[in-house]
Amino acid sequence: MSQSDETIKLVLLRHGQSEWNRLNLFTGWTDVDLSDQGREEAKAAGIVMKEAGFDFDICYTSYLKRAIHTLNLALESMDREWLPVVKTWRLNERHYGALQGLNKSETAAKFGESQVKIWRRSYDVCPPALNENDERNAALQDPYRNVDKADIPLTESLEVTVQRVKPYFDEVIKPRMLAGDRVLIAAHGNSLRALVMMFENLGPGDIVGVNIPTGVPLVYEFDQDMKFLSKRYLGDQEDIQSKMKAVADQGKKS
Amino acid sequence: MSQSDETIKLVLLRHGQSEWNRLNLFTGWTDVDLSDQGREEAKAAGIVMKEAGFDFDICYTSYLKRAIHTLNLALESMDREWLPVVKTWRLNERHYGALQGLNKSETAAKFGESQVKIWRRSYDVCPPALNENDERNAALQDPYRNVDKADIPLTESLEVTVQRVKPYFDEVIKPRMLAGDRVLIAAHGNSLRALVMMFENLGPGDIVGVNIPTGVPLVYEFDQDMKFLSKRYLGDQEDIQSKMKAVADQGKKS
Repeated sequence: MSQSDETIKLVLLRHGQSEWNRLNLFTGWTDVDLSDQGREEAKAAGIVMKEAGFDFDICYTSYLKRAIHTLNLALESMDREWLPVVKTWRLNERHYGALQGLNKSETAAKFGESQVKIWRRSYDVCPPALNENDERNAALQDPYRNVDKADIPLTESLEVTVQRVKPYFDEVIKPRMLAGDRVLIAAHGNSLRALVMMFENLGPGDIVGVNIPTGVPLVYEFDQDMKFLSKRYLGDQEDIQSKMKAVADQGKKS
Repeated sequence: MSQSDETIKLVLLRHGQSEWNRLNLFTGWTDVDLSDQGREEAKAAGIVMKEAGFDFDICYTSYLKRAIHTLNLALESMDREWLPVVKTWRLNERHYGALQGLNKSETAAKFGESQVKIWRRSYDVCPPALNENDERNAALQDPYRNVDKADIPLTESLEVTVQRVKPYFDEVIKPRMLAGDRVLIAAHGNSLRALVMMFENLGPGDIVGVNIPTGVPLVYEFDQDMKFLSKRYLGDQEDIQSKMKAVADQGKKS
């Protein structure tokens, strides 16, 4: 066994650019597809993982097609379509409430950049909630027909997102990791930020500046007690820096 | 509830044309991808199922990418990517032994059409077995690393295929159907023929003439005791007849 076998690795992958990322709209639980660029990012993520020698025993993703397709395309690049994939609404993007479908720059022009930054990056402030009868309410949609209605949000802060991601990670994913399974999670900017907070024990003030680029595998290493040891992005480091800056700039007026 | 709710439905879907179907090669467990035509067939199968009002609770497929991609594309057409998908080697195509990679027409010219018909359509005759050290032996390949080596074949007759499909259906899929789950199985010509034999209680002499067309959803209906009631293909019936004839003709010399 190599030295690295003494640590527990986990790879996080944020979905590639979606149609609504491209149009700069708040997406949340809206089930939009990847853009062509997003599909290329997903394939490239698979190639980078394969070239770095990564392999997995099980993969987790959300109920949203931009994450599912990202995972499918990455696994295709790795010639690993046969790996088991578990889909859960608990890894969905943060629910963006009544902002879903609004343009980020227009929302910034209307409510001010600082309000949008609060909605996007504060820990405990929820965007305005959806009305229960709004057709955007997930409780009215097929994918959530087996989910307890009481669990389905009408809006979420990052804090609320953590509250639904954490139990799933602790009760489902972590036991598999401790049992030796190599895990890949393909999910979303904010469900992954929730995991990052947990892994690195970050507070609300620390997470605000954390921007996870799309389609770049993020490798966490833990010791055998799941204590955080290190993280690194796979791929060209200069590209990754410019992608992180692009995510941070999305809430600006133009 | 409509009348049809008193029956149990199951949909079988043979993968669309693969690269090796197109080249007329024996495929078996070789993990070849769909052809462009196969991808179109898979998307069309999803549209047909959606238009006929089908929905599912769980999907099963094999470890082979031509079936997995068919399922993914069909689910995409149905806007059902979020459905749970279970992958199992037990739904793999029949293992074609040392014939894997050989041209069907050339093999017919060399061994005679009648010998090829025996290998393709007899119930209990296995094609020549792979050597254990052959790189085509699945026991040496990643997807089968968690499968008991004793279960991995070096060649299979349809009879042997039935022996590994039947327990999976009886122990895993059937209980879900009896519990009310609507099931879609995306698999292969011969793993589906194994199921057809079981469902319709066909003997070795009956199954020889059964040819399942690629990419056409096949709907079985059972009573509440899982007794076979009826089957029908979804889609244009004339197209389906010509596809079934094409499958039957593959073993001819030209």
